[in-house]
This record gives sequence, structure tokens and C-alpha cells, in this order.
Amino acid sequence: MIYLDNCATTRVFDEALEVCNIYMKEKYFNPSGLYRLSKKTEEDIDSARKVIADVIHANPSEIYFAPSATMANNMLLLSILSKNDKKNIVTTYTEHSSVFKTIKSFKEKREIRYVKINEDGSLDLDDLKNKVDENTGLVSIMQVQNEIGVINNLEEIGKIVRDKSNAIFHVDGVQGFIKYPINVKKIGIDLYTISAHKVHGPKGIAGLFVDSKLKLQEFFHGGGQEKGYFPGTENVAGIMGFKKAVEIYTENRDEVVDRVKAFKKKLISELEKIEESSINSYGGSDFIVSASFKDIRSEVLIHYLENYDICVSSGSSCSKNNRSRVLEAIKLSDDFIDGTIRISFSYFTNEEEINEFLVKLKEGVETLRSMVRR
Amino acid sequence: MIYLDNCATTRVFDEALEVCNIYMKEKYFNPSGLYRLSKKTEEDIDSARKVIADVIHANPSEIYFAPSATMANNMLLLSILSKNDKKNIVTTYTEHSSVFKTIKSFKEKREIRYVKINEDGSLDLDDLKNKVDENTGLVSIMQVQNEIGVINNLEEIGKIVRDKSNAIFHVDGVQGFIKYPINVKKIGIDLYTISAHKVHGPKGIAGLFVDSKLKLQEFFHGGGQEKGYFPGTENVAGIMGFKKAVEIYTENRDEVVDRVKAFKKKLISELEKIEESSINSYGGSDFIVSASFKDIRSEVLIHYLENYDICVSSGSSCSKNNRSRVLEAIKLSDDFIDGTIRISFSYFTNEEEINEFLVKLKEGVETLRSMVRR
Repeated sequence: MIYLDNCATTRVFDEALEVCNIYMKEKYFNPSGLYRLSKKTEEDIDSARKVIADVIHANPSEIYFAPSATMANNMLLLSILSKNDKKNIVTTYTEHSSVFKTIKSFKEKREIRYVKINEDGSLDLDDLKNKVDENTGLVSIMQVQNEIGVINNLEEIGKIVRDKSNAIFHVDGVQGFIKYPINVKKIGIDLYTISAHKVHGPKGIAGLFVDSKLKLQEFFHGGGQEKGYFPGTENVAGIMGFKKAVEIYTENRDEVVDRVKAFKKKLISELEKIEESSINSYGGSDFIVSASFKDIRSEVLIHYLENYDICVSSGSSCSKNNRSRVLEAIKLSDDFIDGTIRISFSYFTNEEEINEFLVKLKEGVETLRSMVRR
Repeated sequence: MIYLDNCATTRVFDEALEVCNIYMKEKYFNPSGLYRLSKKTEEDIDSARKVIADVIHANPSEIYFAPSATMANNMLLLSILSKNDKKNIVTTYTEHSSVFKTIKSFKEKREIRYVKINEDGSLDLDDLKNKVDENTGLVSIMQVQNEIGVINNLEEIGKIVRDKSNAIFHVDGVQGFIKYPINVKKIGIDLYTISAHKVHGPKGIAGLFVDSKLKLQEFFHGGGQEKGYFPGTENVAGIMGFKKAVEIYTENRDEVVDRVKAFKKKLISELEKIEESSINSYGGSDFIVSASFKDIRSEVLIHYLENYDICVSSGSSCSKNNRSRVLEAIKLSDDFIDGTIRISFSYFTNEEEINEFLVKLKEGVETLRSMVRR
């Protein structure tokens, strides 16, 4: 199988899997227990906070675990926006749906300002300067765009946000975490969300950074776990598997990025040779290539490819049956928008897979076009 | 090790662990993908809904997955109570903190009516009749109490709720699921929450039943997973491990209950022989024994026992540093309340462990008393 849908989810590292097994089979204790074996799992969880904190230059005590980045984004945004103030929100049309829709749900109560997106998907920084002001309560802008791979210039964005407001600055880091270095303290990010299953950790576990100077209200109620931010018995196996995945990925990060950079370069140069194609991701993340083909429906192409055990995604796999806000934001023409696929690499992707994929993709586009065009 | 803290959490069945591994290592696809391998994981998730639905006599389409029962209780209660109506809430002081505290957080906005608890921990049904009326919007009463094991008579309670109101009827089934049969349709339960890690499934996955006649508003926002109730990439490995655990436990349920019934009987008869002890759980769940010892602090006893690799809990392990609402509700005297431990059995508990535990417990109580009393 050639799995090129790694923005959707990834295979769990064998070593992370082994760790999960240990915590499900042997060290399965509830961290809230009063006996040592319980206390030890609590310490183990703290060791995972440290590993994650180190990657983003935060303090371990500022890292919390959540069941998913979607839940983390929801909790943070709902908690902040439920407060009874009138401050405006600055965000973009290209945020992940867990951010975009949660913010949109406050449209009756708050002014929401969407920053203009340039045609390459990047943020219009001049427009950002116009939109952020002293009445801005929240700015939410992601690190790496999940459909077309744009890497936002968070240093610049952070400066503008800090210069012009006292807003809380939230960054969804799901597609950027580990892959692209970030220093949350230096930039002045208050909230940063990450997910294990995008970096070869298990599904069902995610993390959030909450700057210690920020006092968020407890939004959920329960046994007080995760400082009350995410109560409920800790998913210890998930957390420890996440830790292991972060350790492995971080250690090999540079090598992986070099590798996928070459894949992206090759892929783009070959895709450009396909007539009436559009590359939507020249820059940005080396892990993501978005390309569109005229007169092709992405679903049909995906099904064609899966006959050869190749997995790729349409625009975004995060939600179904919705036309992509992101491809609309970059003004991709109607001829192309429905023929968009996303190819996303992982730690495991190798050159042979890329070559094989390219052969089948070219065949597929040709075959499908010959069918619709005859 | 003698692990007798199975109300806090349980060891994952080996077979469930194997299933988790398959879904982390091989079938790791995102169910939202458009290719067959993704669709297949979606079907697999639906097969898990069916297994759970069968246990409680619901329809598979009424079962949803959540990251924890705490999150499920929060979502359900926040979703219902955030609506702008003035209806009263009927509940008890002995609910799990995820229910108790979430409801309490609405005390400024709603009238909360707490039903009287009898001294054996059971619900005062006459008082329930007085408290539920046509203005009651929500009744939340758990199936099996997690500290002292009381099994609530949900048939009777359900009749009263239905006779006197149109309230939504929520039942936290975490400690009762599988162990004690329930027919949600017959009783007229609208919402029922369960957790995998209490029945030898993995942590980080739970479930909820939402009767199809109930139209809950989407509370969280994201990719629309779990009909929008719990968006975010599905924890497929967790769900499938949960399914496996439910299958194994259900198949052997009767045998397990017979076994632990005998353990509880033996334990109680031996505990009664200890001077100045109090048994707080004569009836109720066969899986739970709560006992208190005068002049003993439970933490000290727990540490004594763990020297012999025996794990038991104090009153409740769900939250720390709080005096038990439940033990107060049953009017356990101050002399005893701080010396309360909870012994909870599992599928795996065997007679040898019970015998060994009894020896060490008696020694422990004697030793510790001789130290404080001299």
C-alpha cells in the first residue's frame, strides 16, 4: 500500500504502540489513586508534558492533554468566547473547521473579522494590521494550513497582534507541530493545540499549551484532571504513546523534512507536466502537495488510485460533502476546484512510493479524461 | 499484585489490546477518507455501535462515541442546560462529580432539586415524587453509585419521571453497564453514558446513548463526526478495543457476577468481625464493598496495604482532596468517614486474592490502631 494521506492521520510508530501496550496491560492504574503505582503514572504523564514542552519552548506545567485537537480548540474558544464581553475576533476563512465553526457560532454575539488571504494562501499582513485593534479579544490563526500547506509567518503575525492589541493569541499547530520549529514564548502565543495522530502517535489523544500567565476558566466539570481543563480519567496509554512518538519524530525531524522536501520538489515538477493541472501548494509545508486537474472529479481519481492500493485525499479529509473554504479562498477556478487532491507525506514515505504514485496518477488522469471527454 | 480498585479503572483485556494494536498499526485510516480502507473503518465503528446497543436494548444508530464518560456527561448536560429556559433540574448529592458539578454550575440560572438519600444510600422515592413536576426539564440519576455501590431502581424512578413530567431522563451508567442489565427503551431513559475503561476496555474512549426521538443541539464544532456530538477524528483503535471488551464481558457476565457476589459476601462477613468497623455497602453492586474503620485514616491504610502490593481506594478515586459527598449523604459518622476504603472487584479477581487481602487488611487495621491508640 502507498499511503499518502498523512495529513488525515498516520500509522502509529511501533515503539509508541509498545508503550501503549505497557500502559494498557501493566501500568493501567488510575493516576488519581492514592497508592504509589498510581502516583507513578501521574509522574509518567508529567514526563510526557516535558517532552512536548521542549519541542515548543514552553514549560511542562503549561502542557495539558485533551482527547483531540478538535476538543481542545472547542474548549479553548468556547471558554474564552462565552465570557460576556463584546470584543471582536480576528481569524481567517482557512482555519480548521473546529476553529472556523466554533468562532462562527458566536457571530450573533461578536464581531468576527476575517483576514484576507492572498492567492498563494498566505495571510495578507497589511489586512491583518487593519483588522486587529485594541478591541480585539482573540486572534486565531493556524500554523500550517491543512489543505494546501501554507506556513503562516507567526513571528510577523505575533508582532502585529502584540503591537496592536492585548488579544489572546491562539494557534492551531496540528499540521506544524514538530515538523516546523516554533517558540511559543518568543512569538507570544498564548494557546497552541497539537494532535498525536498526525505525528505517528495514537488517535484519541492531543495536547494544548496554555501560557501560565493566562487564567482560563474551567469549562468542563469533573474530577479536576488536567487542572480542570479536561477532567475525566487520563488516557495514560495514549499520553505515553504520544510522548514516545514525539521523541522519535523530534530526533529524526531534520532528516524527515529533507526527505519529503525532495519528494515535494519531484512531485511538483512532474505534476506540472500534466496538461491543465494546477499546483495549489508551491510553497509552504514540505509534507503537503495540493493539485487540481481539469475535467476530473477528485472522488473518481481517488477511487482509480485505490485500485492500485494508493491512498490520497480530496481537498481535505476532515469533513465530508463540503466544498473547500480554503480552495475558494485562494480563488481556484471552478474548472479545477472539484478535481483537487491532496498528497501528504509522512515519516515513512519513501521515493519508490512517490515514483509509483506518479505513474498511476498520470495514467489515472489520462484514463479518466479520455472517458469524460470522448 | 492484588488489584482491588476496579471502580477506578481496570486492566485492558488481552484480546481488546490485540484489537487496538491492529487499528493502530494496520487499519489506522481516518474514517472520513473517501477510499475503501477508510470506509471500512467507518463500518467497523458501526459494528461497535451494534454490540453496545444490544447490551442496553437500544438501536445502533443511537450509540455515539465520546472521549470519556466525563466528557459525555458534560456535553449532554451543558447542551441541554444552556438552552434558555427556566425548567428545574432533579438530581441527587451522590452523582459522579462530572454530573454533580456540571449541574451545580447552573445554580444561578435554574432551580436544582436534590432528592433525599436514605441511610443505605438508596433514593427516597417519595421525595422523588415530590420533586419531579411538570416544570422539570431534566432528571439525572445514576445507575450504580460509584463509591458505595447502590443500585438505583431505575424502573421505579423512570415510572415516576414519566408520570409526572416530560423531563429528559439522563442516567450515568458507568458503574452499571454490562454488570447490571438495563433496557433503556422500556424504562424510558433518554440519555445513558458508559465508559470502556471500567469494563476492561482502553482509557480514552466512552459511549453515550441518545434516544433517536431526542434532538440535541450540536454543542461542539468540527468535522461533524459522531453526528456532530463529538467531532474530531474518531479514536478507532479505542472504539474497536471497547467493542471487544464489551463482547468478552457480556459473554461471561453471569459467571463474573456470581463470582464477585461470593467475594462480597465473604468480605462483608469478615469485615464485620473487625471491631469498630462500618460496612457502607450491604446491598447494591456485587462489585463494590465500602467499609470504614474507626481511628484509621484511609490514606494510611492504603499505604500499609500497598506495601504488600495490594491496591484499594479511599472513598472515591475520581477526585482528590475532597470529603465524600456520598458518605456524608448516608450520614456516616465523623469517627468513621475518614477511615473509609473502597474495595472493588473485576472480571479477573479471584478468591486467593480476597483471602490474602483479608489477612493483610486485618493486620493493617490492628497495627495502625495500636500505633494511634497507644
